[in-house]
This record gives sequence, C-alpha cells and structure tokens, in this order.
Amino acid sequence: MLSFKCDYSEGAHPLILEALVRTNLEQCDGYGEDRFTASARERIARACGLGPGGEVYLLGGGTQTNSTIIAALLAPYEGAVAVRSGHIAVHEAGAVEYTGHKVLTIEGRDGKMEADALEAFLASFQADPNKDHMVWPGLVYISFPTEYGTIYTRSELEALHSVASSYGIPLMLDGARLGYGLSSPECDFSLEDLKDLVDVFYIGGTKVGALCGEAVVFPKGAPKHFFTTVKQHGALFAKGRLLGIQFDTLFTDGLYLKISAHAIGMAGLLKEVFRSRGIPFFLESPTNQQFVILENERMKELSTQVGFDVWEAVDVTHTAVRFATSWATSREQIEQLAAIL
Amino acid sequence: MLSFKCDYSEGAHPLILEALVRTNLEQCDGYGEDRFTASARERIARACGLGPGGEVYLLGGGTQTNSTIIAALLAPYEGAVAVRSGHIAVHEAGAVEYTGHKVLTIEGRDGKMEADALEAFLASFQADPNKDHMVWPGLVYISFPTEYGTIYTRSELEALHSVASSYGIPLMLDGARLGYGLSSPECDFSLEDLKDLVDVFYIGGTKVGALCGEAVVFPKGAPKHFFTTVKQHGALFAKGRLLGIQFDTLFTDGLYLKISAHAIGMAGLLKEVFRSRGIPFFLESPTNQQFVILENERMKELSTQVGFDVWEAVDVTHTAVRFATSWATSREQIEQLAAIL
Amino acid sequence: MLSFKCDYSEGAHPLILEALVRTNLEQCDGYGEDRFTASARERIARACGLGPGGEVYLLGGGTQTNSTIIAALLAPYEGAVAVRSGHIAVHEAGAVEYTGHKVLTIEGRDGKMEADALEAFLASFQADPNKDHMVWPGLVYISFPTEYGTIYTRSELEALHSVASSYGIPLMLDGARLGYGLSSPECDFSLEDLKDLVDVFYIGGTKVGALCGEAVVFPKGAPKHFFTTVKQHGALFAKGRLLGIQFDTLFTDGLYLKISAHAIGMAGLLKEVFRSRGIPFFLESPTNQQFVILENERMKELSTQVGFDVWEAVDVTHTAVRFATSWATSREQIEQLAAIL
Amino acid sequence: MLSFKCDYSEGAHPLILEALVRTNLEQCDGYGEDRFTASARERIARACGLGPGGEVYLLGGGTQTNSTIIAALLAPYEGAVAVRSGHIAVHEAGAVEYTGHKVLTIEGRDGKMEADALEAFLASFQADPNKDHMVWPGLVYISFPTEYGTIYTRSELEALHSVASSYGIPLMLDGARLGYGLSSPECDFSLEDLKDLVDVFYIGGTKVGALCGEAVVFPKGAPKHFFTTVKQHGALFAKGRLLGIQFDTLFTDGLYLKISAHAIGMAGLLKEVFRSRGIPFFLESPTNQQFVILENERMKELSTQVGFDVWEAVDVTHTAVRFATSWATSREQIEQLAAIL
Repeated sequence: MLSFKCDYSEGAHPLILEALVRTNLEQCDGYGEDRFTASARERIARACGLGPGGEVYLLGGGTQTNSTIIAALLAPYEGAVAVRSGHIAVHEAGAVEYTGHKVLTIEGRDGKMEADALEAFLASFQADPNKDHMVWPGLVYISFPTEYGTIYTRSELEALHSVASSYGIPLMLDGARLGYGLSSPECDFSLEDLKDLVDVFYIGGTKVGALCGEAVVFPKGAPKHFFTTVKQHGALFAKGRLLGIQFDTLFTDGLYLKISAHAIGMAGLLKEVFRSRGIPFFLESPTNQQFVILENERMKELSTQVGFDVWEAVDVTHTAVRFATSWATSREQIEQLAAIL
Repeated sequence: MLSFKCDYSEGAHPLILEALVRTNLEQCDGYGEDRFTASARERIARACGLGPGGEVYLLGGGTQTNSTIIAALLAPYEGAVAVRSGHIAVHEAGAVEYTGHKVLTIEGRDGKMEADALEAFLASFQADPNKDHMVWPGLVYISFPTEYGTIYTRSELEALHSVASSYGIPLMLDGARLGYGLSSPECDFSLEDLKDLVDVFYIGGTKVGALCGEAVVFPKGAPKHFFTTVKQHGALFAKGRLLGIQFDTLFTDGLYLKISAHAIGMAGLLKEVFRSRGIPFFLESPTNQQFVILENERMKELSTQVGFDVWEAVDVTHTAVRFATSWATSREQIEQLAAIL
Repeated sequence: MLSFKCDYSEGAHPLILEALVRTNLEQCDGYGEDRFTASARERIARACGLGPGGEVYLLGGGTQTNSTIIAALLAPYEGAVAVRSGHIAVHEAGAVEYTGHKVLTIEGRDGKMEADALEAFLASFQADPNKDHMVWPGLVYISFPTEYGTIYTRSELEALHSVASSYGIPLMLDGARLGYGLSSPECDFSLEDLKDLVDVFYIGGTKVGALCGEAVVFPKGAPKHFFTTVKQHGALFAKGRLLGIQFDTLFTDGLYLKISAHAIGMAGLLKEVFRSRGIPFFLESPTNQQFVILENERMKELSTQVGFDVWEAVDVTHTAVRFATSWATSREQIEQLAAIL
Repeated sequence: MLSFKCDYSEGAHPLILEALVRTNLEQCDGYGEDRFTASARERIARACGLGPGGEVYLLGGGTQTNSTIIAALLAPYEGAVAVRSGHIAVHEAGAVEYTGHKVLTIEGRDGKMEADALEAFLASFQADPNKDHMVWPGLVYISFPTEYGTIYTRSELEALHSVASSYGIPLMLDGARLGYGLSSPECDFSLEDLKDLVDVFYIGGTKVGALCGEAVVFPKGAPKHFFTTVKQHGALFAKGRLLGIQFDTLFTDGLYLKISAHAIGMAGLLKEVFRSRGIPFFLESPTNQQFVILENERMKELSTQVGFDVWEAVDVTHTAVRFATSWATSREQIEQLAAIL
C-alpha cells in the first residue's frame, strides 16, 4: 500500500547500495578505523566548513546519538532543556533519564523553542533561592526541523545561541532530518553556517537516504574520550565501514542536499494536493513533514488506501495526521495520493 | 594489505547485499514492524526450534545487545557473573556498569567458565554473612565461542545451566560468533539444542556475514516491554528492515551455518600452515580464531606484511597474536599467508 | 532571630534526646539489627494496623527515601507520575532521574493530584500509538501534606488509588510531614487507614520531631532484597540504633501524633494572627505550613525581624511566603510574631 | 552480651550527646547552613591545615560518602581503582556501579594497595591497544586503615600519590576509621600531613564517636556544585546541625584524636590478652581491628559468651575472626574478655 507514513519507509539511496556492493570485499579495520570513515569525516568537515579543531563522529541512530551526546556533555547534576514536544522529552523511552539526567521542559511554539522563553527559564533558575536543590540546566536541546516540521531562522538560532552562551550552556541541534530543513526554501542559512550557530549538531542519515547513521559534528572538538563514551553507550559499530561508506557517499557531489531538496519539492506538490482539495493544515510546515486535519470518519476510510501517521486529536471529531515525503518519494506517488483524495 | 585481524574486516555476504538491493524501494513500517523482520524472526524461531512462547528480537551490535539484555534481566541490586576475560568484563567500556550493574568476575580457563567454579562462587556468596551488603549474582554470562576461540561441550553447558538454575539465576550466552562455534567439528550440539541449554542467547550477525545485527533469542519469552527497553538503550533501528533483511537472508537455506562452516574450514587450513611452520599455538582453539606465539622481532617484521591482532605478552620476548578467519576468508588468502610465513 | 522558616529548625523532641542518652552505652549490632529498631518497627506496624505481611524500614532522609523506594518499585522502562510541583519533580536535584527513571508530570491543583487528571493521563498513555517509545507510568507519587500544605480527603485518596490500581500501578505517599497532615482537623482518616489507601508510604521523622529518619511502610511487604537496595543507595545507617531509638520513642505513647497535633494548634494561632492583621492567604492550608501574600517592601522589612521562606512571586509587587510551625513551636513565638506584625 | 564485634556498637561520645542536648532548641537554617556546621568545617579545615582553597563537607555515612565522591570526580567513561578487598569493591552492594562506574580491582597485600602494583596496572592500561574499549582508570581508592586494620606509611602514601599523579589521577582515601589509623603508634604522619598525601579524603565519624557522619576534605577545593551532587545522592541532611554539632564537638580540644588514641590503647591490651593466651594473629594490625585465628569448635563456644565478627575461613578447621575496640571500649571489657578466654 502507498505510504507517506514516515521518511524511513524505503531502504537507502541507490548510490549508497552501489558503494556498499562495490567496496564489499575490501578488508578494513573495525570500529571506524577504515578509510571510508576517514573520508566521510573529512568530507563532512569540509561541507560544514570546520576549522582544524572540529571533529566528526558517526553513530547509528537518533535516540542513541541524542543520549550519547547529552551524557557526554552534561555534568551529573545537570539536565537538558527542551521544549515539551522535544523528541528526547517524549519519544525516546526515557533514554536520557536512563543515563541519569533530567530533561527540563519548557513550553514551545509549533515545536520550536523561543529565545525569550529560554531566557526566562534560565533567569528564573538562576534567581531561584532553591536552585542548589534543583537540576542545573546544562545543555539546550532543539531539533531542526522540529517534530512538527518547522524550522528556525538564522536569527532565531542566533538568539537561542546567545542566550545559552550567556549562561555558559552549549546549544545542541538534533538534525535527524537536517537535510530537509536546510533544503527548505524558507531556510535562510546553510550547512556551513551551523558551526557558528550551535555548539554541537548532527546530520541525520537514517531519515535522509541512509540505512542508518547520524554524523555528529563538534565544531570546537569532541568531549574527551568520546570514542570510549560511544562504545560504552553501545553505539560503536564493529563494521564502522557501514557508516563510513554511507556518509562518504552522501557527502560526495552534494548528494545529501540534492536528495533533501527532492523531498522538499515533493512536499510542495503534496501541499498543493491538500490545498486544492480544501483539506486544512494543522500548522504551516516548510519541510518534508506535512500535518493536515482530517474528519475522523474520513481518516478511517483513507487509512485503508494510504499510509500516514496519526498525530494528535484536534477535537472530538477531527484529528491531525502527518504525511511525510522523503528522498525516495516520487511524483507518481503524489499523483496516486491525489487520485485517492 | 592481507589481513586476518578480525572477522569483521569485510562487508556483508553477497546474498545480503543482493537482498538489500532487491527490496530497496519497497515501503515498510519502521522500528521492526516490517515484513522482513517478521520473516526473520519466524525463520530464526524455527531454526532454533522455539516453542510458542519463544521470542526473537533483532538488535544492532554486541555491546549494545549485552547491556540491553543484562539490564532487562537483572534487578537493580543484582550483577552479572562472568569470567575475568569475559567481553562484558573487559572490552565493553563499562557498558554494563553504566546501566548500574556490577560485573562479578571469577577465574576462567582458556576463556571458559567452569561449573565447579561457578558453584563455588554462588555457594560462597550464599554462605557469606555479609551477602546482604554485596551485589547479588543475578545472571551468568558466558560467550560461545569464548574470547579465546574455545567452545563448551553440551555437557559443560548442561552443568553450568544446572548450577545457575539451582540458584534461580538465568544463564545467558553471548553468541557474537555463534555460527563459528556451532560449525566447529568439536561442537557436540546444534542450534536447536541451545534453547534448552541456556535461558537467553544471541546469534551474532556482525561477525558472521552481516553488516551489523545480533538476533536475541528468549526461548521462554522476552522480559516485559523489552521493545521499550531496546528503544531506551538506543538499540532500536528506525529502519528495522536493515536487520530484518539481513537475518532473513542468513536464515534462508541454512546460509548462516554454511558460511560459518566455511570459516571453520579456512581455520583448519590456517592451523595447518602454522603447524607446518613450527609456529606454536598459544592455546588449542577449535573455531575461527587461532592464537599463536610469535617471537617479538618476527612479530614486528610480519606485521608489515599481514594484519593480525596482538593479544597478550607471553614472556619478555614472545607475544600471543590472533589470526581470525571468517565467512569471507578465501583459500588464496591462506596461501598468501603461507607464502609470507 | 525568631524563625518560622521551616519545620526542621530545631533539634529533636526532648524525649528522643533522653532516650539517646539513656541507651548510649548499650552495645548493639549495626545496620538495623538492634533491639530499638526491632521495637520501632513493631510499634509502627501496630500503629499502622499492618497485617502479618506488612514491613517497615527505617531510612535517613526524604530525598533518599523517595529515590530508594521509587528505584526499588519501578522496572527500568518505567517512570513515576507526579504533579508538576511534586518534591521529586523539582527539589531533589534529579535524584530520581539519577537512578535512571523519568518523573512524568501532570498538572495539579494546590499541590494535589486529582484522580480525573491521573485517569486522563494514564488513559491517554494507553491510547497513544507511540506508547512503546515512551516511558511507562509505573508508580504514582503524591505527598501528604503536599508541598503547599494541603491534604487529601479519604475519598480523594480512594479515587487516586482506584485509578492507579486499575492500571496496575502502585500509589506511593511521601509522608515527610505525615503527622502534620493526620493531625489536621480537616483530615478524615487515620494512620491506621493509610495501609488500605496507598501501596507504600513513609512516616516522616526529620520534620516531625526527629533529628533524621523516615519510616517506610510497605503494607503488603517490601520489594525483594530491599535491605540491599537501601545499602546500595547509601541509605543504610551503620548505627541503625540512631533511627531505631528515635522512631521507638516517637511511637511510644502516641508521641508522634501528639507533637504533630501541637504544631497544628500553633498553626491555628498563626492563621489567626495573619487574619487579624488582614494579611491575605496565598491558599487555604489546613496543616503546619501557612502561605501568605506580602507586599514586597513589607516582605523585605519583615525579613530583618523574623525568618520565613520566600515561596514564589505572585505579581510584580507581591510575593507568596511560607511560615511553618512544628512540634517545637511555642505560643510565645507566635506572640512574638504577632507583636512584630 | 559483651561485644567486640565492631566499632559502631555504642551510641555517641557523651560530649556529643551533651552538645545535642544543650543546643537542641536553638533555631537554625537547614541543609548545613547552620552555625554548627560552619564551625565544624572551620575547625576541621584548621586541624587539617587546609589552605584558602580547601573545602570540607559533612555527609551521613561511609557508602554514601564513597559513592558521592567517586561519582563527582569521575567522568562517565572512568572507573575507580581499588584493591580486591576494598570496601567499595565488595561490601557496598554495588553502590559505585549503581552510579554507572566500574570498580577496577588489583591485588593488594593485607588490604593495602602497593605503588608498584598500581604503576603496573596503569602502565599496562596505557599500553593496551584496546584501551579505548575499556574503562579508564580515573581515580585511585584506598582505605586507611584498611579493611584489615593495616595502615600505610607516609612513604607508601607518597609513592601511591606519585604514581596516581603521574597518570593525572586523583588519590582518594576512605577514612571511615581515620582516627584509629592516625593514632596508631606505627603511623608516621599526622592529620595535617594528609592534605599533601592524597587528593581527597574523609574523616570518619560514625566509627569514631559520632552517631553518624563523615567529613569530606577536598584540600584543593570540591568539584563544582558538590552541594547539589550531595543532594542528588540523597546524602544531604535537612537537619545539617546533626552533623555540624557532632563534628564541631569532635574537633574541639582534640577530642577526635584523643578518643581514637584510647581505642588504640585498648587494642594494645587486647593484643596482649590474645598473645598471652597463645591465640595466633591472622595478620599484624597496628590499629583497633585485631584479627585472630580460632579453632572452629572454640570459635563456636566463644561466640556464646562474647561478640566478634567472623571474617574468613583459614582452613577447614580454623577461622579468622575480628575483635574491634573503639572510643567506647573500657579496660573492664578487656578484662572480662580475658576472664572468658
């Protein structure tokens, strides 16, 4: 059945599979000590415009990457600040808490953290006479695009970064869908700019053409012995080549952004389909995840013909649902959906 | 350069790559809800002779699998018993301790745990007047083959299982190299027997032909909400199909054991090469890892021509080194090594 | 300076000190194996009307007791549900998260959890298609009296207990100030009733006449090896007699409730003082913590003459502050305060 | 029954009880913000000869203190090195592992760590090609006196400190029985010297005259936000005065060392009793814990008349047992024992 349920429905971009096949019998050292990983790290560093101190690590999946980075950056008495809808706050089965750290939540808007809200939270913490009895905010976590498909503008990121920095706290960007954010026509900055806008971020592979893999970028260098921390978190691949080859391919000839742009193009068509059928949007998303409101009966009926993700109840008779495009979405699939609708 | 450094030097068995390519654009649900994973779980259950309550889960890598299983099975006040050379005790960067559990070590012999030693340890614990101030042994961890390539006989496993059971403790078998153990001519039991010999085990994919992946088998059913525990440990793949397709392939037409047997055949040739050159063995291994003793100067010289793993110092002038074969080792590679030696 | 800052400003009830002095040189076994602890456990069990399976443990302080109980009762994938103002959610420095468990917060009213809100939360969790990616609610935590001095009625507790039980989740009551709640004229149940109203609770000593100590009551028996868990959490006193003697004294001749009733009597006088001076209450508290609203200038001035606790800003020019009475508060102190006001 | 089972059989030194009684109704702020704690910290700092950066914290008990210090000092990927018989390695119910850190054990001699063994361990770790897959040694833990009553000489401590420092690792001294070590005639350094011999240590109160309490000394300053870490570990007393008053008393007029010296004097008499009766010593201990070997039948018989601690089997018919003196041991008790023997 046709599905727009998520952006990880298919396997990998064909060029990745080709590279896996082509290099298959070449013998490599394990644990990321292979030439593909070296090349991938080098290409990513270049694409991100990293200086000599910058470092890149390849991990397997989003939850793992989030909890590994956060545990590596926080002191034991610190927690990570996120908006209430942040992925680490809701849908990672308590992976951050499992490492001993609280997720401190503040209200967001359409999935985004606002600099004013962050400033107010941090200021109130510092002013609290009981702060020594509380979890210290030690890192600010945002996702880009957010769980609602929304993105930050350059000035919004600058504002968040400036607030976080003024309290001595790093800003971390979960880029599980980074490509789809950067390729949005509404995005006013580039991958190269990110190194100055946040303190650590990762480039999502799993949802942008890879079988698995997230590339963590530390513009100013990784925490001490980060390799060991990755191992301790069970996030080190014996066959590091699997991650290396994939990212090496994604960062050759701009493939990563090219396929991201394709997904955004398809999302544009998708929006057009909904708009032309008078189906209202739950919120305005400029990326590959589109949220529309369906009357419950219609939703039930539609679900027998096409896959989508049930998001949240809007009222007693309506529900917000998510349709996602990806690097693999074809014009034909959009047309099929149009026909169904 | 020719390498016998480890059994994860190459990519995946060609049939796995073919399957990945063939199924690439088929849309699947994420997180293991795909048809490949269902089929793989089904095939593995059948290959293991599981009864109706048995369950199979697919995870990404060894360290992750070990710490996830152990954390799921232990109560907070319990620890895992292992031999001093056990992988979880030494080379997993404290991943088990990171989940809050102590690894309780006892002496092993050639990497194996002996039933008598286990019995003595558990009995002395129970007899200790201070046991309530100590970490309770809550699980027995063994690897098969061990870190030294050795394997347990059926009766040895029965003895360990019987001791563990008599103390109400589950026996867990780390099968990162399970195929190489089962295919050894000295192994006197089969994959189907394992369900009765231990309480939980996993079938290593990473080192036996897959790009990544370990299949955890709970003959009597998984711990409650194990899916959520896997997610919490960052061990859940969004593209569960990656694991599903690999294990589905490995368990079609007996591929897993066929390629394991090939590696054992190559190890036989390797042994012959060492024996014929008068190179002494560090210990007698019936599986794909072979340990020989080299004079240090020779070791240094040899390392410029062929890859192997430095294991441990034997005396001031000699070192034990490891040569490993795998599903990918060819007769030509063995001959090349013979020529070099 | 006169202080109403908290209910732990003084040392211990004189009878406790007398008992410590009287028994000082009697030799006892350590770690709670002394006759005082045995007697205290026995007296508490009787006062609580425990049946044969019930168990009592003596720990040192509130945060320690909360995190030890919670960690002992939760599975690794579970979290504790609390209202946003719950002590474990805010003022325990992330002690619960440090044990690996999330605190799941819901909105409360005047510090209390409402059965409807709990039911809605648990129902929505069960209905959530993503619940396997989320932290499972595994325990419900309430405090009695709450952090705002409010208390639950019997029927409110019954409703909460019924909701929690219908989801198979234990209800835990943090009774750091239990005596002050039970002695409130508005409390419509007794200490003996608690065993049926909740699944585990503790009787606060630190804030009710002891130097330290909280008595945990498991009406249906403690989690397996709870002694070892207490030790693991660093909550086991070598000189268990210190806790034993204190609780033995508090539960002899009804001392615990007598001194609690005294504090409530003093709180009544305190309320009268505020009411007669036209100082508005922040909320209606029937226990020993009284919250009033002060104009900020007046607050500053007053703070030079009497100790109180700054609670939270009400508006730009007003602040809610807390005055607490205790077993040690005297009529003279209330009169002194009246004179100052 | 007369008991030499441990050094925490009695309550507190009478001067401590007097001080508790005398100050009982003085109102203090909680959580260590009282004048007694301030005074105690000041007196201890002076007794230890601390410079301006030095800091002192008061915690409740040994296990709690060990795990709090260790968790505060280690990075997540690090573990604590201890001898196999070290208290944290055996008898603290895995409290250190519960915080996520491995205890790395090496062989000791009579409970002591040897500088050569430490050097060998750290050197071999640094030389290990797999060290990035292993737990990094991040702290060296020793106890003084050890679990066997033995003590380090100044030069032994200097050697250990020098080795640890050369690897950039702090040396921590568990001084649960510190007074009994310092007061031993064989001790060749003083409390004032300790600040230069180790990086952090604590002065045991529980076993040396207090009801509870350990004073942690950081000669070069505590880890950042140590107060919050203490709270997070459940180790912060609401009535900090309980610890403050006790340590203030112990460090007034040299009481701590005076009562320690008394215990050592009594241990001298105890030794004399054993020696004169021809009862062999298990090892030579210069402190308050004396280990002798009893024939099993005699041990059983004796245990009906006097309390002692069963330590470990020596052979099939003999057992090592421990007799401990303390600040509270009287000449009469020793004479009673002599009469029994």
